Amino acid sequence: MNAPKIPFLLTPGPLTTAPATREAMLRDWGSRDGAFIALNRRIRERLVALAGGEGSHVCVPLQGSGTFAVEAMLGTFVPRDGKLLVVINGAYGHRMVRMCRAMGRAYATYETAEDTPPDPARLDALLAGDAAISHVAVVHCETTSGILNPLAEIAAIVARRGRRLLVDSMSGFGALPLDAREIPFDALAASANKCLEGVPGMAFVIARRDALEACAGNAPVLSFDLLDQFQAMEKTAQWRFTPPTHVIAALGAALDAHEAEGGVAGRGARYRGNRKILVDGMRQLGFETLLPDALQAPVIVTFHMPADPRFRFETFYDGLRDKGYVIYPGKLTVADSFRIGCIGQLHEAEMRGALAAVRATLAEMGVTQCGRAQAA
Amino acid sequence: MNAPKIPFLLTPGPLTTAPATREAMLRDWGSRDGAFIALNRRIRERLVALAGGEGSHVCVPLQGSGTFAVEAMLGTFVPRDGKLLVVINGAYGHRMVRMCRAMGRAYATYETAEDTPPDPARLDALLAGDAAISHVAVVHCETTSGILNPLAEIAAIVARRGRRLLVDSMSGFGALPLDAREIPFDALAASANKCLEGVPGMAFVIARRDALEACAGNAPVLSFDLLDQFQAMEKTAQWRFTPPTHVIAALGAALDAHEAEGGVAGRGARYRGNRKILVDGMRQLGFETLLPDALQAPVIVTFHMPADPRFRFETFYDGLRDKGYVIYPGKLTVADSFRIGCIGQLHEAEMRGALAAVRATLAEMGVTQCGRAQAA
Repeated sequence: MNAPKIPFLLTPGPLTTAPATREAMLRDWGSRDGAFIALNRRIRERLVALAGGEGSHVCVPLQGSGTFAVEAMLGTFVPRDGKLLVVINGAYGHRMVRMCRAMGRAYATYETAEDTPPDPARLDALLAGDAAISHVAVVHCETTSGILNPLAEIAAIVARRGRRLLVDSMSGFGALPLDAREIPFDALAASANKCLEGVPGMAFVIARRDALEACAGNAPVLSFDLLDQFQAMEKTAQWRFTPPTHVIAALGAALDAHEAEGGVAGRGARYRGNRKILVDGMRQLGFETLLPDALQAPVIVTFHMPADPRFRFETFYDGLRDKGYVIYPGKLTVADSFRIGCIGQLHEAEMRGALAAVRATLAEMGVTQCGRAQAA
Repeated sequence: MNAPKIPFLLTPGPLTTAPATREAMLRDWGSRDGAFIALNRRIRERLVALAGGEGSHVCVPLQGSGTFAVEAMLGTFVPRDGKLLVVINGAYGHRMVRMCRAMGRAYATYETAEDTPPDPARLDALLAGDAAISHVAVVHCETTSGILNPLAEIAAIVARRGRRLLVDSMSGFGALPLDAREIPFDALAASANKCLEGVPGMAFVIARRDALEACAGNAPVLSFDLLDQFQAMEKTAQWRFTPPTHVIAALGAALDAHEAEGGVAGRGARYRGNRKILVDGMRQLGFETLLPDALQAPVIVTFHMPADPRFRFETFYDGLRDKGYVIYPGKLTVADSFRIGCIGQLHEAEMRGALAAVRATLAEMGVTQCGRAQAA
């Protein structure tokens, strides 16, 4: 088996990018120069269009990781006297609670198990019972498990109850359909580095312009004041603080590739194909997925650890990496597990290559039983 | 005159980087994989060593722009019931005041004009007169004017008065000497993208380990909790949130080049040479610098706008850019000005090329009088 020199990343990001995306980083840009300003404007317009937000929504890019954009979104949109209901079924929901604590924002939680989507009726009852809740935050696709949460139903309930919705669509944006004309939200945070296949180093918030413009004075730190960032960019066409120029150029190239692939529909179709090859192949080997197919987003798949006592995750991980495929540890509390991603520059050949590497590594380990350990 | 295809950036960052630095971004790294973890560890160790902090200080890297690191430093180190004295002589000092307001931290200011360094005796009196001041923040080199502030004197006074020093050395670190064994500070924020000549997208804080470990519960947002970032990195060797892997790899390559150039001494010597060529050449043309030579850091030089009515800055800027050299607008309130940087991958040839472009552009504009306009 010929291992690729640079391993493929079957992870939720950083992920494997296209050569043209990385090559876009080979030049230096002046952040105040016309060509860079035009590039930045075009990226912001394209991101708004991907969310169906033309005319109603704006894109506020932010330096840093996706988590920075989520915290900036919560801090900018939830007023200092507001209250956030955090819908939780994984680590990213819990992280939003940590943010509320650090920022001193009042919050409530609605938590389900990591393999269980929130129940819209229960959410409705919680909102009916607490008039202080001004905003609801939900994770679109929880990469903790890979579960797809029922965003449309949640958005409809939040709107009907007259509250505001904030969406963490970090790992879904660009591959999972999400149209602002159909799903009401005040803001949505996403990353350059997940389904858009850019490189890590920037994220962005798509916000309803009206809602954003009502957020003066909310932000807990200057750097995360998305209204200030937006107003400065509208006024000067420049970022407030040094932008990650190379990362932005890479995103521009990645958006070209996204468009050439057929946008959200085309990208989503490839990822669904990757997921099918992966899940079918792993099931043939005896592995069991955490989630039933109906709840499984085409982003990252959680598999139960095999029962076979010869299976050691570290050995399995290293064996796959040595064959050119990097997978991801589990993050679940409900079950012992590991994860394999479907996103990034992975096509049928890479997914089949990964399955071959799994088979070969299992053989090296002498593992024959890939079914899950029975719960004690 | 043969214009380079990609212009040289005579700016304070983003700046012109070396090809090897950019080429380090041509591969994707898994953020949990051993090779990336080793690269990250080595970078952190090298940055501590550059500050003379081995054994006493630690490096906490942070995603985003340098401003993010400054705000994280202030938010992490100044307790919620602390009070910060901000020493101001330019935009970056004023920005720290905006941060204090957003974060709700008590602050006082000591401001001098943009061309005037703070007076150590006055600082001493301010500290003597306000026992509530727990921390002092100062900008090492204010890129607003290019002034070098008297960091050693300030640090000595702050220490003698039993207060804690926080340094914004964004545009100086890596080229201006700064040794933690001689200059007492609790924390120092700097960027990958200034004198270290990496690409923008990450910054870092060098902190006295003791001081950092006393900062639990201070941070105003989770993302800027440098203690949490440090503890997670010590425990797992990984970043808390998706790291900008390509930007980090570029910094690794940039640190190799920094070492090969002779470290801080070698880098500083080249920049001083650049400054001399620039200032001498511009003075020969009749331009006047804002600062006397003794206050001028070898980072960026502010020139007064010429009196000649045929001089229009936009035309001058565009003329230089078309010849392959990007300069920087002024940011002063005390005088009408523009700036030209000395940092990045600029050597004698590029500085002389920039001067030739200045001469040619002035000729095109018909400008003959480059002396400053007299104050009204």
